[in-house]
Amino acid sequence: MLEQTVAAIRPLDEVAMAAARALHARLTKPAGSLGALEELSIRLAGLAGACPPPVPAPAAVAIFAADHGVHAQGVTPWPQEVTAQMVANFLTGGAVVNAFARQTGATVTVVDVGVRNGPLLSHFAAEEARPDTPAAGAAAGSAGTAPASVGAPRLVRANVRPGSRDMTIGPALTRQEARDAVEVGIRIADELLDAGAGILLTGDMGIGNTTPAAALIAAFTGADPATVTGRGTGVDDPTYARKIEVIRTALDRHRPDPGDPLGVLAAVGGLEHAALAGLVLGGAARRTPVLLDGVSAVAAALAAVAFAPAAGHALVAGHRSAEPGATTGLERLGLTPILDLGLRLGEGTGALLAFPVVAGAVRVLHEVATFDSAGVSEK
Amino acid sequence: MLEQTVAAIRPLDEVAMAAARALHARLTKPAGSLGALEELSIRLAGLAGACPPPVPAPAAVAIFAADHGVHAQGVTPWPQEVTAQMVANFLTGGAVVNAFARQTGATVTVVDVGVRNGPLLSHFAAEEARPDTPAAGAAAGSAGTAPASVGAPRLVRANVRPGSRDMTIGPALTRQEARDAVEVGIRIADELLDAGAGILLTGDMGIGNTTPAAALIAAFTGADPATVTGRGTGVDDPTYARKIEVIRTALDRHRPDPGDPLGVLAAVGGLEHAALAGLVLGGAARRTPVLLDGVSAVAAALAAVAFAPAAGHALVAGHRSAEPGATTGLERLGLTPILDLGLRLGEGTGALLAFPVVAGAVRVLHEVATFDSAGVSEK
Repeated sequence: MLEQTVAAIRPLDEVAMAAARALHARLTKPAGSLGALEELSIRLAGLAGACPPPVPAPAAVAIFAADHGVHAQGVTPWPQEVTAQMVANFLTGGAVVNAFARQTGATVTVVDVGVRNGPLLSHFAAEEARPDTPAAGAAAGSAGTAPASVGAPRLVRANVRPGSRDMTIGPALTRQEARDAVEVGIRIADELLDAGAGILLTGDMGIGNTTPAAALIAAFTGADPATVTGRGTGVDDPTYARKIEVIRTALDRHRPDPGDPLGVLAAVGGLEHAALAGLVLGGAARRTPVLLDGVSAVAAALAAVAFAPAAGHALVAGHRSAEPGATTGLERLGLTPILDLGLRLGEGTGALLAFPVVAGAVRVLHEVATFDSAGVSEK
Repeated sequence: MLEQTVAAIRPLDEVAMAAARALHARLTKPAGSLGALEELSIRLAGLAGACPPPVPAPAAVAIFAADHGVHAQGVTPWPQEVTAQMVANFLTGGAVVNAFARQTGATVTVVDVGVRNGPLLSHFAAEEARPDTPAAGAAAGSAGTAPASVGAPRLVRANVRPGSRDMTIGPALTRQEARDAVEVGIRIADELLDAGAGILLTGDMGIGNTTPAAALIAAFTGADPATVTGRGTGVDDPTYARKIEVIRTALDRHRPDPGDPLGVLAAVGGLEHAALAGLVLGGAARRTPVLLDGVSAVAAALAAVAFAPAAGHALVAGHRSAEPGATTGLERLGLTPILDLGLRLGEGTGALLAFPVVAGAVRVLHEVATFDSAGVSEK
């Protein structure tokens, strides 16, 4: 499935982009007065291969949740069970991502791709991933194609393994586990798009997951761990120093090849990062924009473009996370974020806040009158 | 009315702000992880005098339209009749502001506070401003209290005079005209809030209006005209040089006193800038946030805080306009814009794009579970 998805990703359609540029020049506004939004809407025309491109709505946020063996190295003050507790919070609608999703009219899909404390979630109704999802094995039945209703978060069980291994001791994942997680992300992209989503928003939850995110960014960009590692949810100086050392140790041990994204994800990644990379590939293969949230999404996007450089055309950066690695990664991806508000929460919160801007950029091409049609004089 | 409004503006409520700070610390997210949104929501609690403060929704954008005598000096390549043509475009829903308002669920109210080409608008149904609005004189009846329905832009006639005078020859407005326009803005704020708006968004339309905006910003901040003047809708080099000279000539001629905001508005302002200053004062007096759009709004906000320094507490900067004067003004106002996308369209477009972020910041205080209530462990 991974190889087929990568093969389906196309370059931008230059004809559609030229048409969008020409349309912008006829709309009742001074040329260029929408700044970055004009370039964004032109690129999304190229992605869709149509002018105007479909309005990227409704939004579907997919929150991939997983735990991390590297938690044992003391990289965060938060206990590991918070991952499962926050998944429960998402499902009962009590998290920030839920408040922002309600405001935006976005659906929330929580995917357990590697939570350790599974029993805590057992009393929530869940859908199994589709039968042919590698992670789900021979699980029977599928509710995955039913459209999600706004305001009712749903849980999808696609647990590849109950958390990654400690990357300082050995590879975090096997190559097969990394592939399985990527394919969970591809499958979720397909499900959400089949259910009518017009844009995919990345979300993540995993106590300790800024450590693998920084390791991935260092591996894919060649940056020194000290420059891409941040304080995550807020660690003190000794923990911060330890976090950098942990990443350095893991990278020294595995020396992952940035040209081998599965190898990098297996060595130092998290299951949610691998799944997010799959979500990006799945969206790009369906010519649909993927709106990135924070540092975990940026790390995953670097993996996605290592699989398929043209996947980068589908990416929109929702915001600039306070984590320094996010900036390093966005620069490598050539993306300018829509928002820069010092957010460092994850969950998909920054992507949700940016979503109306992306939708607005495209609505302009659908709804704004031309100088001719509105009887407005030109300069 | 102006003096009563100014007198009604209160300082921030420190008790409500402390309560909002304490509430943020109990919500299921790492402390500080919402960055600038936390500070914003705390300030809005102080503005409202309540924790949580009301969710600032629905949004009402008020577009004040006027013409400018300084157009005769060749400061823009656009013909003056485009002001009225664009008002017609707003009323038929064909402008960018309409597309963004539909997306956001905002009402659009277009206020003719000084359009020159009035006859062009005569076939549109309109409400007169309330009978006691200075500009409306003894006009009978009032539909102004009917709630505006989303998606149906409405026109309010409150034309103080058909455009300002040429500021290079004499004062743009009399003091009474400037006062009348400010009071139109106050009245519109009251009407929109009475109709249920939870936040006021500034909009403006006026061919040539970046010239008075830059003049106002130079007058209130003391900045040199060359540093605060931009290319507006896109002027060539000779026009740009002339624009700076025009502003310098007007300021040299009038030497307005920044401590006398009516005097500054009369000398070099536009009717829409004066009305926008009134909108800010009206919102602040009702403890309601006013979300600023671009450079005209920033110029008006400088006037508003010259009338009443505490009016600044109600201000939220929607975006950083590409006009350099906007940055100068925002710095003086102590505001960091939510978006920075190179927009330079006006109409209220940047404010509308930023609105969901402001609403989201406050929704967090209403809707997010606490660590206790959600059973989430703390670090």
